[in-house]
Amino acid sequence: MERVNIGVDIGGMTIKAGVVNNKGEILFRNTRKTNQKKGVENFINTIKEQIDELNKTAIENNYTVCGVGFGIPGVVNNKLGTIDYACNLGFEHVPLKEKLKDLNLEIALSNDANVACLAEQKFGAAKGKSNVVMLTLGTGIGGGVVIDNKLFEGVEGKGTELGHTVIVVNGVQCGCGRKGCFEAYASATALLRITKEHMMINRDSEMWDYCDGLIENVNGLTSFECAKAGDLEANKVVDEYIMYLGEGILNFCNIFRPNAIVLGGGVSNQKEYLVNKLIKYCEERDYGYRNSPKVEILIASLGNDAGIIGAAHLLEY
Amino acid sequence: MERVNIGVDIGGMTIKAGVVNNKGEILFRNTRKTNQKKGVENFINTIKEQIDELNKTAIENNYTVCGVGFGIPGVVNNKLGTIDYACNLGFEHVPLKEKLKDLNLEIALSNDANVACLAEQKFGAAKGKSNVVMLTLGTGIGGGVVIDNKLFEGVEGKGTELGHTVIVVNGVQCGCGRKGCFEAYASATALLRITKEHMMINRDSEMWDYCDGLIENVNGLTSFECAKAGDLEANKVVDEYIMYLGEGILNFCNIFRPNAIVLGGGVSNQKEYLVNKLIKYCEERDYGYRNSPKVEILIASLGNDAGIIGAAHLLEY
Repeated sequence: MERVNIGVDIGGMTIKAGVVNNKGEILFRNTRKTNQKKGVENFINTIKEQIDELNKTAIENNYTVCGVGFGIPGVVNNKLGTIDYACNLGFEHVPLKEKLKDLNLEIALSNDANVACLAEQKFGAAKGKSNVVMLTLGTGIGGGVVIDNKLFEGVEGKGTELGHTVIVVNGVQCGCGRKGCFEAYASATALLRITKEHMMINRDSEMWDYCDGLIENVNGLTSFECAKAGDLEANKVVDEYIMYLGEGILNFCNIFRPNAIVLGGGVSNQKEYLVNKLIKYCEERDYGYRNSPKVEILIASLGNDAGIIGAAHLLEY
Repeated sequence: MERVNIGVDIGGMTIKAGVVNNKGEILFRNTRKTNQKKGVENFINTIKEQIDELNKTAIENNYTVCGVGFGIPGVVNNKLGTIDYACNLGFEHVPLKEKLKDLNLEIALSNDANVACLAEQKFGAAKGKSNVVMLTLGTGIGGGVVIDNKLFEGVEGKGTELGHTVIVVNGVQCGCGRKGCFEAYASATALLRITKEHMMINRDSEMWDYCDGLIENVNGLTSFECAKAGDLEANKVVDEYIMYLGEGILNFCNIFRPNAIVLGGGVSNQKEYLVNKLIKYCEERDYGYRNSPKVEILIASLGNDAGIIGAAHLLEY
């Protein structure tokens, strides 16, 4: 009977669960829609159904499920096993571990960017590197940190909120309440804001054609694709975005001095184009980067599976 | 034979060494002046003399010295035991461990702010707390981090350069080469700059009297003491300084979510006056601080002994 764990990746739209072995392979999986309007009890019951179904399949195939790990889009208490606040789910103070105790399985939970980092460090882009920082560049910026092959989470699992570190004192208002957060300058959302600002300045930019003349059509590709096609204003957008992202990355180099920084989320789809510009930006700046061990900048490789794999690996095998 | 270690605190002016027991008590000590002009060999010989002298005293008093730990004002490689760069000493690429191998003692070294953090966490202001961030507010800003009762140093010991994290993109030039570092806004040096800027704007400020009308007399007390006496412009200086220091502290709360942040260095002599203003600033800002476990802000309590004590405790007892 091979020992396995179940990983559950909770998102604003779907709950994705899977049986994961100690090689980071997802053996069986299922998915349900998240229905926030139906409340917490419905949410818990959906999860229980998914786990029961996967547990049954695992047993039929001669696997022993030892525990269930969760990646939560929000703030958790990893000691108590509670979801303290999850804005996208509309939940607060959910005693997840307590609600699942009749499953008789070990339960662990962590922030979604944390589990993604763990997965990329164990099985993905940063495999084999002991010290890794991950940044997920999406609607916001999630942060995860692995130190000496172990997930670092801070007290109660409330640390590594790397998106909520101010890089411009009194800068752009962030959703978190602070002003000038990294997230407000280097998330996909921030990229759209910067793109629109530049389009309003330059009506001749090809970005307008790319959007069929409608600014509401701006997306994460607008600036990058027009920059690649040679549009001057689009290149200004990309340079500005790279500056903010690069300054944040240099901060995390100086703070954690990891072996690698892994980029995930929508913006990371720009792959080498993004990484090459970032490496150039960072290498032109002095402190730490040049006279210290080189920090590799990598693109996440596990895609949407990182959540399930990392969540399962919150538990021992 | 009680086991002890020797801690050596290397500064720009003096080399302070001491025999330290496992309770963090300095049993015997000696001090020599640092003479940078005499070069690396002289520097090494001075240290050897100090260690030999302390070792002899330790043996005479029935102690066994197991190892020697060093706090270095600069960049080290803690794996190789080298001083890679120490601006204030004028040294580069010093193979310290290699040079001391005939002592037949275990050798360990780390950055000076790191060892101070370790000392404060084990025996000082943050005793009993497992997760601690230390900021030394002096000429620059040194950073140290203890995670789960263990010093966190990053690859090669080159992490936790907390002073060199940008809080104002394209801001004030920092000595490290970057622009807008925390150190350039919240060190004692930055406090003097901010003080002078405000004095130039307001010739009626009492800060001028405090300095006998000479701006070159400005020191770290000028703004704080005049603010306490009710001077409006001095209060503006203090508020501005608290803002930058507070934003940095909130960043480190969100990154490390420690139990406590310990402040050392010259500016920390303002004790409760400084801490009370910082707590007020942080509590008025939302993210992390309010809905997350409270991060205590404390003043370092070991003073100049932190270096010796922390350096000795880089080694096992």
